Amino acid sequence: MGTSANAGGGRSGPALDKDVDFAQYFCTYSFLYHQKEMLSDRVRMDAYFNAIFENKRHFVGKTVLDVGTGSGILAIWSAQAGARKVYAVEATKMSEHARALVKANNLQDVVEVIEGSIEDISLPEKVDVIISEWMGYFLLRESMFDSVICARDRWLKPTGVMYPSHARMWMAPIRTGIIDHKVADYQSAMDDWHNFVDETKTCYGVDMGTLTNPFSEEQRKYYLQTSLWNNLHPHQVIGTAAIIKDIDCLTATVPEIEKVRSNFSLSVTTDNTKLCGFGGWFDVHFRGRSEDPAEQEIELTTAPSVDYPTHWGQQVFLLHPPTHVGEGDDLSISFLMSRSRENHRLMEVELGCEIKQKSGKLLAPFKNKFYIE
Amino acid sequence: MGTSANAGGGRSGPALDKDVDFAQYFCTYSFLYHQKEMLSDRVRMDAYFNAIFENKRHFVGKTVLDVGTGSGILAIWSAQAGARKVYAVEATKMSEHARALVKANNLQDVVEVIEGSIEDISLPEKVDVIISEWMGYFLLRESMFDSVICARDRWLKPTGVMYPSHARMWMAPIRTGIIDHKVADYQSAMDDWHNFVDETKTCYGVDMGTLTNPFSEEQRKYYLQTSLWNNLHPHQVIGTAAIIKDIDCLTATVPEIEKVRSNFSLSVTTDNTKLCGFGGWFDVHFRGRSEDPAEQEIELTTAPSVDYPTHWGQQVFLLHPPTHVGEGDDLSISFLMSRSRENHRLMEVELGCEIKQKSGKLLAPFKNKFYIE
Repeated sequence: MGTSANAGGGRSGPALDKDVDFAQYFCTYSFLYHQKEMLSDRVRMDAYFNAIFENKRHFVGKTVLDVGTGSGILAIWSAQAGARKVYAVEATKMSEHARALVKANNLQDVVEVIEGSIEDISLPEKVDVIISEWMGYFLLRESMFDSVICARDRWLKPTGVMYPSHARMWMAPIRTGIIDHKVADYQSAMDDWHNFVDETKTCYGVDMGTLTNPFSEEQRKYYLQTSLWNNLHPHQVIGTAAIIKDIDCLTATVPEIEKVRSNFSLSVTTDNTKLCGFGGWFDVHFRGRSEDPAEQEIELTTAPSVDYPTHWGQQVFLLHPPTHVGEGDDLSISFLMSRSRENHRLMEVELGCEIKQKSGKLLAPFKNKFYIE
Repeated sequence: MGTSANAGGGRSGPALDKDVDFAQYFCTYSFLYHQKEMLSDRVRMDAYFNAIFENKRHFVGKTVLDVGTGSGILAIWSAQAGARKVYAVEATKMSEHARALVKANNLQDVVEVIEGSIEDISLPEKVDVIISEWMGYFLLRESMFDSVICARDRWLKPTGVMYPSHARMWMAPIRTGIIDHKVADYQSAMDDWHNFVDETKTCYGVDMGTLTNPFSEEQRKYYLQTSLWNNLHPHQVIGTAAIIKDIDCLTATVPEIEKVRSNFSLSVTTDNTKLCGFGGWFDVHFRGRSEDPAEQEIELTTAPSVDYPTHWGQQVFLLHPPTHVGEGDDLSISFLMSRSRENHRLMEVELGCEIKQKSGKLLAPFKNKFYIE
């Protein structure tokens, strides 16, 4: 679920403060308007609908756990596909709407809605299937997959399957006009600041000059270093895309996703263009497990698309100034994504890039820091 | 300080959850951009500047406590006006910038910046003056005055003065075109919802009709029942303004402001117009105390004004549909403002209105509920 999340506790410290987490992260999901936004994402809906109904064998007569059921849609579909019993867990008061929806669709004998955090609740049995729509912007924003891992380790039978079964993070070089706007906004904020400092000195006798640097840093971070939501056009992708991270949902661990470190190469395929930044997105697959594969493998991708946009969009990491690149240029990328110390649901990214031109000439490498807020 | 505040604990329950309060309310104030916004409000700045420098007698050689110092501006002015010692208390990391600002202005021997909540910190002595800019939208939003009361009861000498000394909430009948937009937005959201319900049933086999009522309530609350920030033009005020609440900052108690109950009359002064709602605002005064009055009484008002707008604007409570009114019509208003159970920094308002036309005819009374979010 792509949404705006705020604070929470740090992972490396003591246990997450649950009240803070609830007040800042979970509460967004208690609004019907937000649920509707996700339910209106046809690509998302089609993928999960098909993943379930094209793979009834995984559901008929089976037990299912829906982690973060929201409105209850996945739980309802699981029941309609023939599940014997579905546990639909939801941390917010949205669970009351889910319960009403289950009843209105005559599935209350199959679907049991449980209000609570998956980390806290108890189920009467282990399940055959864990289904969840846990993906945030660029896959891991919101860190909801931690909860899915917890659910899996506690409640999935040794023979159980994960829906989705796999997830991948992708990145590609892009061009975009946004950078100019952001640079202009930043400069405008700084011009305004300088006027403000002058006026405050003149009119009010207080010299605010000492705050110019921290203000500049704060504005830089906001305008230039914070990744943006964007719906990229495929033409904006100026080179090959690479897989940053490949996750097997059956075996993934939290340490594995706490820090995502990857080195990869991208090739520029558009000639005479500007490298304005990088676009990040994800896909998930519904493949079942090797011992019990899906009959119909389904893919949900959030790659730049004209016909199949999703509410996730892509995350854009801007470079300033842009670099002139051409077809055949190679980009060596070092990628490190870790969780914000103040908030484990938000991310920090260190993105290094070395450009080797088609001629063989190496340009000076650079490394930028970004914030996924 | 007018700003967007989020959640917190309920007042009538156990002690406020401090971590939640900090994560949701205080953190907005840790951004320099936000401080700058308030520091750029010339009406606000002029009022406090003049209140201090036109009343040096209250400051020269005295001790001062600045509650919620933010960037430190009031503390710095107090020192420049001749205070012997200023304690500048700030709950967020903005305190570090305040400390730097104090040093850059050579006042570190007078101004001591203390990071912490006023409820928790200790001072070495009681003070002659408590100065604070605590006002939220419509005066009491954010409930920061609770903290000022706490500071007063703990740290103000029996002879001490409050800056400001008095505060009043005002209300007037208004006309505005906003209501049409909001009604259209609400209807558009409902049309969209009905299409969504049809499609979800057709394409995905799930009947979401049972959620129509809760969705409608959620959207009504959002579009029609939530008060809006607006910068009203004086011509939009179609009748007399009345004082809802008059606060003496030296003696006010929290129970007195937890529930604000008031009945008052408003007269329509514009003929042949539409009562589209009510505008709410506040003023504060710097009068000192009766035993030790200010030499120069200063007023800071946030009433609708062309030349003197403030960042607080006014709070607009919309009526739908609007009612046709004319010059000489009288409005009997019953006003009840209480704190939101989920969040003591946000408010709920019950506003009853009975219109007596100039002819003497009484129109059917109505009562609306609003949310100050």
